Parts: sequence; C-alpha cells; structure tokens
Amino acid sequence: MSSAAGGERLSLNQMTIPRWTVREAVDGCARHGIRHLGLWREKVAECGIDASVRTARDAGVAISCLCRGGGFPAATAAERRARIDDNRQAIDEAAALGGATLVLVCGPLAGRDIDGARRMVEDAIAELAPYAAERGVPLAIEPLHPMFAADRSVVATLAHATAIAERFPADQVGVLVDAYHVWWDPTVYAEIARAGPRIFGFHISDWIVPLPDVLFGRGMMGDGVIELRRLRRAVDAAGYAGPVEVEIFNRTINGMPGDDVLALMKERYLTHVA
Amino acid sequence: MSSAAGGERLSLNQMTIPRWTVREAVDGCARHGIRHLGLWREKVAECGIDASVRTARDAGVAISCLCRGGGFPAATAAERRARIDDNRQAIDEAAALGGATLVLVCGPLAGRDIDGARRMVEDAIAELAPYAAERGVPLAIEPLHPMFAADRSVVATLAHATAIAERFPADQVGVLVDAYHVWWDPTVYAEIARAGPRIFGFHISDWIVPLPDVLFGRGMMGDGVIELRRLRRAVDAAGYAGPVEVEIFNRTINGMPGDDVLALMKERYLTHVA
Repeated sequence: MSSAAGGERLSLNQMTIPRWTVREAVDGCARHGIRHLGLWREKVAECGIDASVRTARDAGVAISCLCRGGGFPAATAAERRARIDDNRQAIDEAAALGGATLVLVCGPLAGRDIDGARRMVEDAIAELAPYAAERGVPLAIEPLHPMFAADRSVVATLAHATAIAERFPADQVGVLVDAYHVWWDPTVYAEIARAGPRIFGFHISDWIVPLPDVLFGRGMMGDGVIELRRLRRAVDAAGYAGPVEVEIFNRTINGMPGDDVLALMKERYLTHVA
Repeated sequence: MSSAAGGERLSLNQMTIPRWTVREAVDGCARHGIRHLGLWREKVAECGIDASVRTARDAGVAISCLCRGGGFPAATAAERRARIDDNRQAIDEAAALGGATLVLVCGPLAGRDIDGARRMVEDAIAELAPYAAERGVPLAIEPLHPMFAADRSVVATLAHATAIAERFPADQVGVLVDAYHVWWDPTVYAEIARAGPRIFGFHISDWIVPLPDVLFGRGMMGDGVIELRRLRRAVDAAGYAGPVEVEIFNRTINGMPGDDVLALMKERYLTHVA
C-alpha cells in the first residue's frame, strides 16, 4: 500500500463512460469522491472550455489531462501541416483548461515506411514543443501497444517514447504510461525507471484473456493478467505522484450506468492497484 | 534483388494450406517448384516420420523446420516437467526428420507473473539445449507479437529471444524471425544484425489494416504494410541464407484451393520479397 491507498489519486478518463458530458462526468466524480478527471477534446468542445473549467473547479475535481493530440504522419506536406495546426489548437485548449497535460497518440503509418512515419512524429513534436512550453502545457507521448503500430501509433514502446521526449526539457515533454499498452514489454520496468520525472500520466485497465477485441477489449482492473500494482509501484518509485487514471475502452463497460462504473472502478482500484 | 530472386528460397509452411497432408504438401511444392517445406508435428504424426522424410526426399523438397515445441510456463512443476518431456519428443522427431530446426513458441503466462513465466521458459530451454545439440537439432526461439504475450508467448521481442539464445552455442540455439511478429519494433533492424548467425529461420506474411483477426488475420505478402523486402534484405545482410517461408494463418487464404495458394504466394514473393 502507499499514498494511493485511500483513492485520492484515482482518476476517471471520461471515455470510460463515453455517454456522459463533461458536466455529468464532473458530477459523477464528485458524487463518488473521485478527485481527478481526464477530458476529451470533443466533449470539452460540446460543453465549452470555460464552462468545463468552471464546472470542474466548483466541484473540486482536477483536470488530469486532455485527450488528445497527435496523428502526425500523413502522405502530403499539406496534410502534415494541417495536423500540426490542429495540435496547436489542442495545446491552446489544454492551456485554457489550466495547463492540462496534452496526451499525444502519435499516429499511424502513411504507407509502408515506418521509419519515415516516425521521423514525421519527431519533426512534429519538435515543432510543437516550444509552442506548448510557452503556454505551460506539458506534452505526454503515449506509446500504444504494438498491435496499433499500423493504424494508430508508430510509437509502440516506452523506450521509443522516452527517447523522443528526452530531446526536450524534462518538464515540457514526457510520456504517458498506460498499463494496457506496455505491460508485455520485458524492458518496461527499466524504461519506467529511465523515464523518471518525464512520466506525466499513468493509465490503467486490464488485459483480458482471450482478448475480446483489439480496440474495445480492455478489461476492468482485476479481470485480466496485468500486474497493475507492480506497475503502479514502479511509476511511483520513478517519482510519479500524479493521478492513476482508469481508461477502459470496452463496449460492455462503456454501456453500463455511469455510477455503477465509478463504484466498480473504485473498488477494483483499491483491491488491485492502490 | 538477390539470390532470392528466382524463388529458390521460397518455402511453404504447411499450415498455410492446413487441409493438406504432408504428402499433399510435398506434392504441391514439387508441382510448383517450391523447394522447402515447414512441417507441423500433428501432420507428421498422421503421415509417419519415416514416410514424411521419404516423401520429401523423393520429391526433392527440403524440410525447413518442424513446428513446434515450447509451451513451457505452467502452474505446477509436474506440468512443466510434462511439457519438457513433450519437447524432448519433439526434438526426437526433428532429429528423425534429418535434424530439422525445431521452432519454439515459448508459451503463455501461468497466472499474472510474467517474469516468473519468462524464467520458466529460460530454465526449460537450458534443460533442452544439450539434449537437442546431441541430436543435431537446432532450436529456434520465435518471438511472437506482443498481442500474444498473455496467451501464446511471453517472449515477445527479438531482443528477448536473442538474449535467451546467446546463452548457448550459436549453432545450437537461435531465433526465428517472423515478419508479422517483429515488423513494428523500432529496434528490429538492430536486433536482426545482432542475432546474425543465430537467425535459424525467416517467416513472412503481411499485416493487414484494419487487422481482421488477432490469430487468423495475417495477410498475403503485398496486402499489408510490412516492409517485407527490407526485412528480407536485413536477415540476408545478417548472414541468413536459408528458406523464406510463407506462414499465413487466415481463414480465407487457408480455405482456398492449395494450388491457388501456392501460385499466389510465389507471385507475391517475387514481387514483394525477393
């Protein structure tokens, strides 16, 4: 057990209860004593940025992160430019949310050239990092599971994400460690230690066997095989003291009544993670 | 182009045409000028080992590998012992097939302890390596894609497979590089160079977007995003000069008439790999 034992660090990523608006998610967190909430851009746009900030502040719920920027590789320079422009807008939104960490899902292949796509990611982050730093927005590169390398993120390992982040000041560009994406990696504990102060976020769910679905197959903590408490202790030992955020894409869980999800995730967090 | 240009290195893994017996697969290869064939234990058992050897030899088809050993982690010592015994038998079979390379798919988690499962793999290989060496059977550790880490192989990267192999003489324990399992890895080209003379096999298929199925979603070469020629050149540059084997688990392809599969894979091999 640790300082996480009481649930103070538990966070809801709002796509775990995708039908809720920002306001409903904030109210739900307040009802269940959940002090952190990760927002998504489209939900914030519906609610309005200022209203989102006010609602969360009034309820005493901290905004843990904004999902998400990224999507950098593209076949043409014009399309890559459009995506960088969209990321600037995401940075502006994160700044307006009080300097929320912007999570970067770096984007898929554009064709077959994976090294080329990775260079596009690196070039885009190099262009965006100063812009984000000026606005007090930390950028968190999230490596996705290698099964998403073709269609979602050519950044597929924590080592790679950290290597990109290390080109920038440690308070400006870091990584997001999502247990579902990294648990399988034989280097994950060494890489968590290496990332150290660059760990800007920690997301949890579980890996169910057999995997029910590539995209919507994440499990509730305790229903799968991930050593969640071990990973939580590792990020803590690396110096991370921020929210522990539940992000579950799963059609069954996403369809449950929101209050049931919050009650269940809190119980499972205390049993399997804290 | 290279020495592979003429198709001399093309190999059929027999589970690409799963309904064929060993005899039918040998005959098919002979009809299509395919000089190498990877066998599976259950198919060899149906045909008989001696008959399999004779049939292949008479047709001028070389046996590229035997699939497969492995499956080492288990909850009890008795079960682990039973699996090692089964692997000894697989080694005996590979020896009887003329010293065929035995492919090791190392096995899934037994519970949640992934490091423990990995130690079981390492211990089992350490026990089996001398037995295999005495019988002239090379052991090829095949890292599977990380999406199989929970249910098929806790060895999920080429780096990990090579690190295990490096504890043994280079002609006794090596790795099998399957493009489908390793293409996403940012270290794959460095790791292929490192594995060098320990590359005991090279399998090809393709990664289709979107992935139609985790287990049966492999594509025919050219239908996906893997840089197959680049990978083939990399294993060649590392010193590999053996068969280039088509192993496709895909319900559509597996259900096609075998001769159509052979014609298609030969064409695609020449266009996308050789």
